[in-house]
Amino acid sequence: MGNNSKLVLKGVIPPLVTPLLSENRIDRVGLERLVEHVIDGGVHGLFLLGTTGEGPSLSAKLKREVVNYACNAVKSRVPVLVGISDTSFEESILLAKHAAECGADAVVLAPPYYFPSGQPELLEYLRHIAPKLPLPLVLYNMPAFTKVDIEVDTLRRASEINNLIAFKDSSGNMIRFHEYMTAMCYVPDFSLLMGPEELLAEAVLFGASGGVAGGANIWPELFVSLYDAANAGDVCNIRLLQEKVFKLRKVYSCGRFASSGIKGIKSALALLDICSDFMAEPFHAFHLTERKKIKAVLSDVKLI
Amino acid sequence: MGNNSKLVLKGVIPPLVTPLLSENRIDRVGLERLVEHVIDGGVHGLFLLGTTGEGPSLSAKLKREVVNYACNAVKSRVPVLVGISDTSFEESILLAKHAAECGADAVVLAPPYYFPSGQPELLEYLRHIAPKLPLPLVLYNMPAFTKVDIEVDTLRRASEINNLIAFKDSSGNMIRFHEYMTAMCYVPDFSLLMGPEELLAEAVLFGASGGVAGGANIWPELFVSLYDAANAGDVCNIRLLQEKVFKLRKVYSCGRFASSGIKGIKSALALLDICSDFMAEPFHAFHLTERKKIKAVLSDVKLI
Amino acid sequence: MGNNSKLVLKGVIPPLVTPLLSENRIDRVGLERLVEHVIDGGVHGLFLLGTTGEGPSLSAKLKREVVNYACNAVKSRVPVLVGISDTSFEESILLAKHAAECGADAVVLAPPYYFPSGQPELLEYLRHIAPKLPLPLVLYNMPAFTKVDIEVDTLRRASEINNLIAFKDSSGNMIRFHEYMTAMCYVPDFSLLMGPEELLAEAVLFGASGGVAGGANIWPELFVSLYDAANAGDVCNIRLLQEKVFKLRKVYSCGRFASSGIKGIKSALALLDICSDFMAEPFHAFHLTERKKIKAVLSDVKLI
Amino acid sequence: MGNNSKLVLKGVIPPLVTPLLSENRIDRVGLERLVEHVIDGGVHGLFLLGTTGEGPSLSAKLKREVVNYACNAVKSRVPVLVGISDTSFEESILLAKHAAECGADAVVLAPPYYFPSGQPELLEYLRHIAPKLPLPLVLYNMPAFTKVDIEVDTLRRASEINNLIAFKDSSGNMIRFHEYMTAMCYVPDFSLLMGPEELLAEAVLFGASGGVAGGANIWPELFVSLYDAANAGDVCNIRLLQEKVFKLRKVYSCGRFASSGIKGIKSALALLDICSDFMAEPFHAFHLTERKKIKAVLSDVKLI
Repeated sequence: MGNNSKLVLKGVIPPLVTPLLSENRIDRVGLERLVEHVIDGGVHGLFLLGTTGEGPSLSAKLKREVVNYACNAVKSRVPVLVGISDTSFEESILLAKHAAECGADAVVLAPPYYFPSGQPELLEYLRHIAPKLPLPLVLYNMPAFTKVDIEVDTLRRASEINNLIAFKDSSGNMIRFHEYMTAMCYVPDFSLLMGPEELLAEAVLFGASGGVAGGANIWPELFVSLYDAANAGDVCNIRLLQEKVFKLRKVYSCGRFASSGIKGIKSALALLDICSDFMAEPFHAFHLTERKKIKAVLSDVKLI
Repeated sequence: MGNNSKLVLKGVIPPLVTPLLSENRIDRVGLERLVEHVIDGGVHGLFLLGTTGEGPSLSAKLKREVVNYACNAVKSRVPVLVGISDTSFEESILLAKHAAECGADAVVLAPPYYFPSGQPELLEYLRHIAPKLPLPLVLYNMPAFTKVDIEVDTLRRASEINNLIAFKDSSGNMIRFHEYMTAMCYVPDFSLLMGPEELLAEAVLFGASGGVAGGANIWPELFVSLYDAANAGDVCNIRLLQEKVFKLRKVYSCGRFASSGIKGIKSALALLDICSDFMAEPFHAFHLTERKKIKAVLSDVKLI
Repeated sequence: MGNNSKLVLKGVIPPLVTPLLSENRIDRVGLERLVEHVIDGGVHGLFLLGTTGEGPSLSAKLKREVVNYACNAVKSRVPVLVGISDTSFEESILLAKHAAECGADAVVLAPPYYFPSGQPELLEYLRHIAPKLPLPLVLYNMPAFTKVDIEVDTLRRASEINNLIAFKDSSGNMIRFHEYMTAMCYVPDFSLLMGPEELLAEAVLFGASGGVAGGANIWPELFVSLYDAANAGDVCNIRLLQEKVFKLRKVYSCGRFASSGIKGIKSALALLDICSDFMAEPFHAFHLTERKKIKAVLSDVKLI
Repeated sequence: MGNNSKLVLKGVIPPLVTPLLSENRIDRVGLERLVEHVIDGGVHGLFLLGTTGEGPSLSAKLKREVVNYACNAVKSRVPVLVGISDTSFEESILLAKHAAECGADAVVLAPPYYFPSGQPELLEYLRHIAPKLPLPLVLYNMPAFTKVDIEVDTLRRASEINNLIAFKDSSGNMIRFHEYMTAMCYVPDFSLLMGPEELLAEAVLFGASGGVAGGANIWPELFVSLYDAANAGDVCNIRLLQEKVFKLRKVYSCGRFASSGIKGIKSALALLDICSDFMAEPFHAFHLTERKKIKAVLSDVKLI
């Protein structure tokens, strides 16, 4: 994507699932098909190895392969973001260097997710790690999984870090997202990205740059249209598209546990013949019962 | 420690801190001094790379060095347990293999700590990983950090796994610990270990095998005496020793965040000239203010 | 308000604070001034004895007085809603009967807030209490204070209760609010009301009937304009007004505890010479330090 | 119980269930039978209108009747404690006055349970209410239901209040209970009471004055024996009795919700022909399925 210093993230940036053939083997063909599927759908970037990408569940070796294969497939058509969140400082840096070598455009970092840091500890951590990263940095708030909820003031102070270019919030806390927007609207070229796709439209309506919609793995066009409508302030159209978003998200609630969302997306992609639904441990692909429910949802929204 | 099939864990097994000189360098001399310090104090085993050992914060390379150095220092005088908890299935197995090669006696595994698993998912994960581990397995409940609280029924069912020999509970939930004891008392040679040192005495009084007392890094004799008194049902002596335990634990509350406990132990060990107090990211050693408080606590319990 | 069976709630319905002169004495003159203040500001209804009204902190005797005085002051110009949430079934019914006698238009009921109920228990409770209430019923979701979060399916099933006419959600969970909207859009004349004023605009944009904005005690015109803009889908205007909403809400964060919001509103109303800032136990009015901050906020939004 | 200034609480003080015939009618005969049952069993006091007594669910009128009937039945044989926790300051005081008139010996007060107070707010509240109470005061920590967890320092400071004579902790946090004990052991004649019966033995072993065991409604002798054994430091006997405690507590887990414990006790008492199992709203008595399970538990511990 050329000169990193000019990278401004916006639009729909799907958190790509990681197609797997087995615990230690990437479904490379599936990954390539998925990349084409979402780029064809008009997405504005890709995010590898995030939560939806099962990043934390993959071995260091597999993570490197995913970055390598995906960058090769994308061929700089859209910016590629690589999740480097890790409980180890050093492992995050090693992966960031690999991402830069593969031609990725930015890295995405959530707080270390074993030990919960206090806000000053987190800020110090960010100030230490950012200069060691060879790429622009996106800070990622994912409190349900990291146990750390990034405060508005922490974000404001972190935004002074030179290569911090964006903030992705997956807390689902819309009140606080408004606070982030209020606080950051004066920082030029800084992007605020909404995590949950259910809140993408209103986030963009109120000034966010875009979102990281998991459902865009399945139906990229829907989220691109929703983003466009929100960007244009077209409330009528937003409502129509939003209705489809809420139909599609039934895909995420076919199972019983927190893993249900990712399992649902992978299962849907397998039903659409895009890639394998194999899940990294500690999870496992849905069984027939859940797959049937997912098929019904896809049929309801006319994807099959 | 000879034939693994006979390993029965009991007594005081300190979760060793990991002495560091810098982010990427072990304080090997400090580590060796610490090993002698706790073995001299009479501990019944060592636990490397646990929460107190900052295991999740260390790079794969550093973890391997810790295991190597510590096993060399221990020279089979007491059993060595190695924490292999990881969000990646494969990385846990790789570290377990390395631990076996270094001569460790068992591995300790908490649930993968990024994605929270449901209880059936956790059980399936344990059944998949256990046969791939070359050593006896200790299951580790640490819900505050893993977001998964291991239910009594899950433990009961997991205990049928061939090489699962013990369960360490760091939840601090004493009511449930009684339930674990009630459920597991019929499983021969299965050890229940108490995490929080404040509950060690009552756990052993009611039938637990021992505990993983962080404070035993600093003052191993105290916890060994407490264990002995509890094992003997000597309530008077327990009360006297318990008083010291509650004086010592002021070391853990000198800072403001969740990291305060480990920082406190490392700071105390530095004051006792045992090892460096350098902390792995995202944490950093205490400053002078907190060190003074820790000195006062050590002085109050007559360790300096 | 005439025939209750036709009551359809919409617009801005401020949760009125309860002006007090002392622990056991209503500031009746202040209450009357407040009623005029918000009706002059164009609000579409009033909600007495809610969370903001410190309902649960008042004695049974004081609650009855509030209802009596307020209904007298309103004189049927707008619908009056009365909070009857209580841990005791009987006390809720007694207050509802009093409200009907005073001429109130509806009652508002959150789940009993000491014992947390399961969803089926809650549904059964609602089915038992509703027929004993002489007025239309608004169900109130306030999980932070009641420890019960009303599920979408519980709402759907509760909406079959004859006199249940509306649902107020103060969870702040915007994703779930979309789910409520999706589930309830087919129930004719059923109103969904947004609690947090920060989310009023987007709730109405996506189909909600209105909101219960605490800030409308202070600045009713602002929220009425915001509601009108949202109702008209006027995104530009919404953004301008929303900016003021986020300036005003600084009033709520001048203190340290959960009570800071209500204290802030009362303090602002005292500064505007509308009513006393006396707080019911266990709370107490802000001191000078906080009052100065509140004055600064009011001055910033040009209310003083 | 004569001179209140000398009241020192100790031993087993069951939190009496409130036998009901219907929503608005006390089962007075059942209540009297229950009083005899527990006094015959050797309990050292009675606690009315606590959590187990469904205090918050009863109307003001019913609460007064319970206190009246129970005090009449007890006839000063043991101290009677009356729960006066309420969200309204005034209602707590009114009930305390009634309790004094009926001859009760102390009142028990948890923090107001709708609005969560900060620790300084709570302390101020206690300082305001205590002088208005005509009886000695027991402070009650019940964070799961009040959302306020009383800190050690708050207790220490509250203990300077003249008529505060005891502290009951139902948090189930045994580590913190040790801290309370450490902090309060220097305050003469101050009683620390353990809530959960599963922790009664170890609490008393380490210095607590007694406990408020819900199961003592059903089997008072068991808990009195356990208290005696703990008081005597008789570890062998404790273990034997503890085993029965853990068998009996299966009574509490026959249902699905938080209400399962109280429902279980009432159901057991009905099976023992002591009193009615009618529950106050929002709860309802167990159905046949659960009653069968409870019968099996009672049979297992040889109570029927």
